[in-house]
Amino acid sequence: MTSREPGLFLSFEGVDGSGKSTQAALLAEYLRATGREVVLTREPGGSPGAEEIRKLVLEGSADRWSAEAELLLFTAARRDHVERLITPALARGAVVITDRFADSTRMYQGLAASGLRETVDRLHEMMIGIEPDRTFLIDMAPDRGLERALGRSGGEVRFESRGLELQERMRHGFLDLAAKTPGRIVVIDGDRPADAVASDIRSQLP
Amino acid sequence: MTSREPGLFLSFEGVDGSGKSTQAALLAEYLRATGREVVLTREPGGSPGAEEIRKLVLEGSADRWSAEAELLLFTAARRDHVERLITPALARGAVVITDRFADSTRMYQGLAASGLRETVDRLHEMMIGIEPDRTFLIDMAPDRGLERALGRSGGEVRFESRGLELQERMRHGFLDLAAKTPGRIVVIDGDRPADAVASDIRSQLP
Ligand SMILES: Nc1ncnc2c1ncn2[C@@H]1O[C@H](COP(=O)(O)OP(=O)(O)OP(=O)(O)O)[C@@H](O)[C@H]1O
Ligand SMILES: Nc1ncnc2c1ncn2[C@@H]1O[C@H](COP(=O)(O)OP(=O)(O)OP(=O)(O)O)[C@@H](O)[C@H]1O
Ligand SMILES: [Mg+2]
Ligand SMILES: [Mg+2]
Repeated sequence: MTSREPGLFLSFEGVDGSGKSTQAALLAEYLRATGREVVLTREPGGSPGAEEIRKLVLEGSADRWSAEAELLLFTAARRDHVERLITPALARGAVVITDRFADSTRMYQGLAASGLRETVDRLHEMMIGIEPDRTFLIDMAPDRGLERALGRSGGEVRFESRGLELQERMRHGFLDLAAKTPGRIVVIDGDRPADAVASDIRSQLP
Repeated sequence: MTSREPGLFLSFEGVDGSGKSTQAALLAEYLRATGREVVLTREPGGSPGAEEIRKLVLEGSADRWSAEAELLLFTAARRDHVERLITPALARGAVVITDRFADSTRMYQGLAASGLRETVDRLHEMMIGIEPDRTFLIDMAPDRGLERALGRSGGEVRFESRGLELQERMRHGFLDLAAKTPGRIVVIDGDRPADAVASDIRSQLP
């Protein structure tokens, strides 16, 4: 995969309802106002091919795909997203902000079956390669996030309905990952008013 | 992945139009007549999830997916096919006959981009693991196969339309692979009447 220079690659991670989409949009708005080109995107999805794969995975019952098949589908979607949208945008100097990226796969698929966590990393290295310059992990007690998320209307509820216990595991998985990746992942306290969270994020841009 | 015992796992490979589907069906018929349970299947596809992935890959223009994204999609489809259909059938003692399997990916995706051939093998080892007990490589000059294939009606023409030069590379790729895998892959001369080909195949069952 080509180099990310001269752009800036940022991702948001965190449990459901923690405020990733809200903060990604606020940061995009802020950076656009400084005159930079900003590409705001999300995963799974983000390119036409990846959005079709997203549909295939998120539709249907929870046991429709094994964790391994799901991992391969999400990796295919990410490969397409990176090739078609992210790498070209970075190459022309844009800021790319993605609402979830590989860390979500490390957690949601990597912790779904024993032995899969390492496979996720090997697959990422083989087929994706690129990592964000900075990842904002919006940390929050999952019951607060779930409360917020259930307050919203409609959409894909499959992952959200996985419940509090899983989200609790994900939160601690994300925090462990952040502790092991201090140069890239910064932990942001998400249980504050949105503008306080946003200014914290802006102060930790690379 | 669980053990393949006590079933028998057979695959057919070869260039387009070489007679894979014809011979797979004839062999299934023959083995059923001996009283065995036979599961006749095909790739890409073979399970409901894998068939949906097949559609996603085979629809649309040839450059819709990169070789790498296509490789990941086919591997996801194979994982589903193996988990949902092949492994359970082998576990109950059936003969599984698949019209194409991993060797097709080794050729069509593995030879599509430089450096990808090795990635295909690593991905197979990581995510699939299982190999057929015997693979029948139906060998034939691609122009003869293409003649036959174009004689058939309709369907997905994307791969077939890749043309003679590519099929020639594939033929030699398959023959090289067979030479390197003598215990598993047997080369069958496909440019003979179907019943002669079929009896040759029956004589080389494991
Ligand atoms: N700091 C905040 N304080 C209170 N409510 C918030 C805050 N940030 C976001 N919200 C609200 O909480 C809900 C979830 O926020 P948002 O959609 O941004 O979270 P998310 O992490 O993207 O969720 P998901 O994982 O489900 O996509 C929304 O209704 C949003 O308006
Ligand atoms: N031995 C044979 N001699 C003559 N014609 C044959 C023979 N075997 C198959 N055919 C015919 O050739 C055509 C291609 O055969 P078949 O569909 O079995 O090939 P295939 O390898 O499965 O092709 P594809 O790769 O396109 O799926 C069919 O019309 C079939 O009836
Ligand atoms: Mg969101
Ligand atoms: Mg066929």
